Amino acid sequence: MDRDTLAERIVRAPFHRWLGLEVEKADATGVELVMPWRGEIVSRADPPIMHGGVVAALIDTAGLYAVLAAGGSAIGTAYMHVDYHRPVVSGTVRVRARALKLGRRISVAEAMVYGEGPEPLASGRGGYFPP
Amino acid sequence: MDRDTLAERIVRAPFHRWLGLEVEKADATGVELVMPWRGEIVSRADPPIMHGGVVAALIDTAGLYAVLAAGGSAIGTAYMHVDYHRPVVSGTVRVRARALKLGRRISVAEAMVYGEGPEPLASGRGGYFPP
Amino acid sequence: MDRDTLAERIVRAPFHRWLGLEVEKADATGVELVMPWRGEIVSRADPPIMHGGVVAALIDTAGLYAVLAAGGSAIGTAYMHVDYHRPVVSGTVRVRARALKLGRRISVAEAMVYGEGPEPLASGRGGYFPP
Amino acid sequence: MDRDTLAERIVRAPFHRWLGLEVEKADATGVELVMPWRGEIVSRADPPIMHGGVVAALIDTAGLYAVLAAGGSAIGTAYMHVDYHRPVVSGTVRVRARALKLGRRISVAEAMVYGEGPEPLASGRGGYFPP
Repeated sequence: MDRDTLAERIVRAPFHRWLGLEVEKADATGVELVMPWRGEIVSRADPPIMHGGVVAALIDTAGLYAVLAAGGSAIGTAYMHVDYHRPVVSGTVRVRARALKLGRRISVAEAMVYGEGPEPLASGRGGYFPP
Repeated sequence: MDRDTLAERIVRAPFHRWLGLEVEKADATGVELVMPWRGEIVSRADPPIMHGGVVAALIDTAGLYAVLAAGGSAIGTAYMHVDYHRPVVSGTVRVRARALKLGRRISVAEAMVYGEGPEPLASGRGGYFPP
Repeated sequence: MDRDTLAERIVRAPFHRWLGLEVEKADATGVELVMPWRGEIVSRADPPIMHGGVVAALIDTAGLYAVLAAGGSAIGTAYMHVDYHRPVVSGTVRVRARALKLGRRISVAEAMVYGEGPEPLASGRGGYFPP
Repeated sequence: MDRDTLAERIVRAPFHRWLGLEVEKADATGVELVMPWRGEIVSRADPPIMHGGVVAALIDTAGLYAVLAAGGSAIGTAYMHVDYHRPVVSGTVRVRARALKLGRRISVAEAMVYGEGPEPLASGRGGYFPP
């Protein structure tokens, strides 16, 4: 699937709309999603730090879209692993993902989350079921 | 920490308030959190299926609270693994967690997510840093 | 599969024979495998500490056998997660596993590793493909 | 640590010697370990397929060495995740790893396992404790 198709598809999910997720880039080599900050996504308010579950949502979603962009098929998540490297603080958040394996029974992708700086704030991987 | 302390603490996090998370039970053997359904948490609207990131948020949060309830200390998540067993559909969602290891450098807890029925819909584990 | 069938099957794998793995218990509620110590399995010789890869082999194998004992089918591992709680030191090592989900596309089991004492030394989970 | 230091260190572990692990490359950007085939490492004899636990041992070890080569400190594994993409069949096996995060409390590395071909046969990541 190309960027336009994925951009149209991502806003169909109510949780993606609530997060404000957008598809910045998508091709066979990987995808990049961006998300604006919003006050409700934090686990601590002062300083605001993104909840680990929201970080996981970014990795889960980007991984599935990376499988789709690489020509694989994926309809749901089988499992996910997330490593939290540094707190995700306010500002635009980016997540980049690429497919590691397109499979008949499961496809695997890895993803990295970035803030304003060059260092990854979190990274992880997910396994996705075909329809 | 006992149930009342955790119940007071859980609503301090804006994302927990948005999810409507409540502490149903908490002692040294484990914790149980409950969450009402809300329309924005789904990845597909018809039938409504809870987004994998929201499921991950439940496991992440319940695991950390299980560490606190068991007398450990935990201030942030180091890593998390989630297995998605069945779609989480509308209705009250429960997550039960228990500490597996209280450590000086990391504590580990496991968690299971339930809907109305007896079978787990998702399960997983997290590692948590002390302050 | 019952205990005798699994006991016969486990020794077919050369790596299981090298590890000396035996099926102590196996029924629908779970399996227990035991392993004697041997000098080559350590990452540090003094004091001897079991290599993390051998611990992972125990979790991987016990999880797959738990799926088989519970009536599921499993022919290979899709993924595995291991948490290392304490060093595994010399003596007989036990691993107990139980199926969490028997699936058409993937089955999931969790496992815990024990030494001589009551506390788990490691724990984890695996996802297994049917044939 | 440089390649020579790691090459000297890897053979100190009895399990590494049994596996025949060698350090092919090691610098701040990553490490590469190679392993010859041997008959005892298989879970199925015909055709010979490497046991998932041995694959996990490669990922565990390469990840820890990648942390050391990048200037981090690591003395033991806190946790590990492995994805099995394709069967690892006979021949020389390679594992490449790189550090994702050097931390005061935990360091994280990712690793990929290769056989004779260009496609990864397995991949994963580990978290490592400093002394």
